[in-house]
Amino acid sequence: MHIYMNGRILKESEWSVSLLDHGFLYGAACFETFRTYDGHPFLFEDHWERLKRSLNALQVEWSMTKDECLDALQLLLAQEVEQDRYIRLTVTAGEEGIGLSGRPYQAPNVIMYSKALDKNAPVRKKGHFLRTRRNTPEGDFRMKAHHYINNILARQEVKDTQTEGLFLSQGGHVAEGILSNLFWVKERVVYTPDCCTGALDGITRQFVLRLCDVLGIKAEIGCYTPEHALSASEAFVTNSVQGIVPLIGMGDNEMVVEDSTITQQLQKAYQEYTHHLMGRNEIGL
Amino acid sequence: MHIYMNGRILKESEWSVSLLDHGFLYGAACFETFRTYDGHPFLFEDHWERLKRSLNALQVEWSMTKDECLDALQLLLAQEVEQDRYIRLTVTAGEEGIGLSGRPYQAPNVIMYSKALDKNAPVRKKGHFLRTRRNTPEGDFRMKAHHYINNILARQEVKDTQTEGLFLSQGGHVAEGILSNLFWVKERVVYTPDCCTGALDGITRQFVLRLCDVLGIKAEIGCYTPEHALSASEAFVTNSVQGIVPLIGMGDNEMVVEDSTITQQLQKAYQEYTHHLMGRNEIGL
Repeated sequence: MHIYMNGRILKESEWSVSLLDHGFLYGAACFETFRTYDGHPFLFEDHWERLKRSLNALQVEWSMTKDECLDALQLLLAQEVEQDRYIRLTVTAGEEGIGLSGRPYQAPNVIMYSKALDKNAPVRKKGHFLRTRRNTPEGDFRMKAHHYINNILARQEVKDTQTEGLFLSQGGHVAEGILSNLFWVKERVVYTPDCCTGALDGITRQFVLRLCDVLGIKAEIGCYTPEHALSASEAFVTNSVQGIVPLIGMGDNEMVVEDSTITQQLQKAYQEYTHHLMGRNEIGL
Repeated sequence: MHIYMNGRILKESEWSVSLLDHGFLYGAACFETFRTYDGHPFLFEDHWERLKRSLNALQVEWSMTKDECLDALQLLLAQEVEQDRYIRLTVTAGEEGIGLSGRPYQAPNVIMYSKALDKNAPVRKKGHFLRTRRNTPEGDFRMKAHHYINNILARQEVKDTQTEGLFLSQGGHVAEGILSNLFWVKERVVYTPDCCTGALDGITRQFVLRLCDVLGIKAEIGCYTPEHALSASEAFVTNSVQGIVPLIGMGDNEMVVEDSTITQQLQKAYQEYTHHLMGRNEIGL
């Protein structure tokens, strides 16, 4: 692993952040996780836009440009032989001392981690509905922020790496996976939960919905009961590191996947873009 | 300010935590804020118990005893001339690297901050109902954890230090203040929201309820509409640093406090215990 922070690569002895950074004291930090494919940061623009939106909502004033950020990534990738990497870009609220002032944050810390990919990541999974419910977002929308206790508690419920825990919302609707978004297919229509369930608006989620448009696959976003998902013929989860991961079943064998036509079609289309696409808006309708 | 960490007082150049601590990466850290009065850590046992309960729920294995923790506090107070301090005791999940394993956390970091009290803290406040709603807890109960974005967004709504922002729950019931619990009085009955609203079960909240019992004041815990609170004759907010802070009104002048009999009775009783009480269970019924 290598870590970039505020303009340079850190020595391992420097891998630390201030005990007074609000990213530590209060979880006031946002981040993006993405993959490089042979050095290309897949969908970087979409990650960038989401990060900026979250930081704006949190009133963190971050002046670094997209190009400066890509330069930082190059600096980081120059440390690595392997150019297929797991990258985490974190922007904290910065050092402010103890207490909440309500004023904008003006001195964020920028950290970028480069980690080896997990070679043993499962290529298919089972879905398990969790007892832990998805909590509601901190503000008007779910930020990808340093607020993962809900996910940690869920992960402690499902330790098996071959199983993806699936959250229901407070209201009992299907929300998302612990570290993924969930999709299922019924009669050639792709379904995914609305973000009002508390689900994160995943970058891969958005890209898969764009692919559906491009491929002429009907997609619906809504509030669905577990029963709706359990009567599907295909299902998959998505995130930026693993891409599209098919589910082989959901629940306690209540649903077994019978088909993989649309999942495979989406996986194939996805793979065509990983080495050059910067943002989903580049692919036309 | 002085900071203790893992057995010793840090030099200012050492005020940092690992970039791989899950307390930073994922907000997996719990804390308590309390006051010392002439060196006495008021209600320390109650804070200790709540911290242990939260760390257990998060599967953080913390072996430090209560006495070891009090010794750490003594080490910290020995650095200070002023013995009336704001103390924050933080226990993080520890350094685990990127990713959620679901395994218990076995190497927590223990940090204790000692900060000067705010001499300008208001002795009374106005209550303002926030647009930002209290989000739901991460698990079965609200932990005091590094998850403060909901509170930060609320604080950005109400920058005036003389005003306490008051959260409603997702369901529209009165929940709590941004950094406090809320109480009001109607016809000599004290009311405070149930924690099912998303409110933190504050140590001072618990202590005030105990004082009500001891003083023979009727107290009710429940789910209340803002209208219920707005028709009160007295109101106050509580936290461990400021104690009991009377409100002079709530809403946009919709409620003006007419009386302070019970608030003053509780404030007087509270002050009698600050210099020696370790836990609320020491005062009998």
